[in-house]
Amino acid sequence: MHTEHQRCAEACYQCAAACEHCALSCLQEENIDMMRECIKLDVQCAALCRLAGQFMALESKHLPSLCRICVDVCKACAEECSKHQHPHCQQCAKRCRACAEACLQMAA
Amino acid sequence: MHTEHQRCAEACYQCAAACEHCALSCLQEENIDMMRECIKLDVQCAALCRLAGQFMALESKHLPSLCRICVDVCKACAEECSKHQHPHCQQCAKRCRACAEACLQMAA
Amino acid sequence: MHTEHQRCAEACYQCAAACEHCALSCLQEENIDMMRECIKLDVQCAALCRLAGQFMALESKHLPSLCRICVDVCKACAEECSKHQHPHCQQCAKRCRACAEACLQMAA
Amino acid sequence: MHTEHQRCAEACYQCAAACEHCALSCLQEENIDMMRECIKLDVQCAALCRLAGQFMALESKHLPSLCRICVDVCKACAEECSKHQHPHCQQCAKRCRACAEACLQMAA
Repeated sequence: MHTEHQRCAEACYQCAAACEHCALSCLQEENIDMMRECIKLDVQCAALCRLAGQFMALESKHLPSLCRICVDVCKACAEECSKHQHPHCQQCAKRCRACAEACLQMAA
Repeated sequence: MHTEHQRCAEACYQCAAACEHCALSCLQEENIDMMRECIKLDVQCAALCRLAGQFMALESKHLPSLCRICVDVCKACAEECSKHQHPHCQQCAKRCRACAEACLQMAA
Repeated sequence: MHTEHQRCAEACYQCAAACEHCALSCLQEENIDMMRECIKLDVQCAALCRLAGQFMALESKHLPSLCRICVDVCKACAEECSKHQHPHCQQCAKRCRACAEACLQMAA
Repeated sequence: MHTEHQRCAEACYQCAAACEHCALSCLQEENIDMMRECIKLDVQCAALCRLAGQFMALESKHLPSLCRICVDVCKACAEECSKHQHPHCQQCAKRCRACAEACLQMAA
């Protein structure tokens, strides 16, 4: 794998792990009512990032298009997560932003 | 799930199953040398269609963008598969075309 | 694909779709507090069933072991879902039980 | 996520990436005929490791059972890959062995 692809795949997998962890943690928060959107976006973002990581390794011709969606979903998830003070949300927002940045370069 | 979403999700999962089956069968063909591109596209198409099926059920806002990529990958896979006379390739091409058509409606 | 494998793969994908739909619907229920466990199991069950569907098509040697876990997760998800009267939970419980039954035969 | 879970999830995702890369590279090898089994195992191992990574973050009750299958599939993939001198096979075998070891601890 090219170094650039590998770095981006790592960002994708780290983002997926942060999203899954955030989703699980949100499900255990006392005030789950305000975490609905966060959980929903976490699940989508994790699934999409895992696929992007896979397409990175497969050197798919369709990688740039997929990365463009990844940028959008990661940004949406980061925006939602950054509204909450829970450490898992703050950590997830950070990983999502890093992944969005890495995917933006691959989408170009 | 809306009926339209459900029908498209079914087309996605049937396409994924046909692609995985085609990939495995290609790996067992005597003349594997000419099946390289087919296997590669099968693996990508299966993974993408499974994710599209998931996003369908999640009623993701990003579904139309994802469906547009799905249309492209399904068409590419159908085109490659239709070059080969193996029944699994012909069947896969058929499922890919059906999935591309269903996803095209969701992308609109 | 063998007919038996194909029937089981279909049960897996239908179960995955029902679980994803149930997860999303639970996230929109007014009384989300009592749906925590249901959402958690839905997400796990959907992911596992999608993988089982894939392994079915790949005719993996490790399919029986995977199907045994699938039986356990589907049963756990069905049990949790059947506690709730929401139509999406009832439907999900039904699909989970059908999938558990199909996987039990493949695990043998 | 617990540190131990996190370390294992990382091993899983690194293994998945190495397997996908190996599969793609095998598909481009001149002597593809002898890489059939390697490609087949790579695809299975990548999919299973990605799911294990997801279950790790979800702290699933069914993680130990899943990790046991992961150990088996990783070992099988490592054994096949170690038969070939291609750098991608050697690298994949290494990642598979590291993942098998990490999963073995989680399975206990």
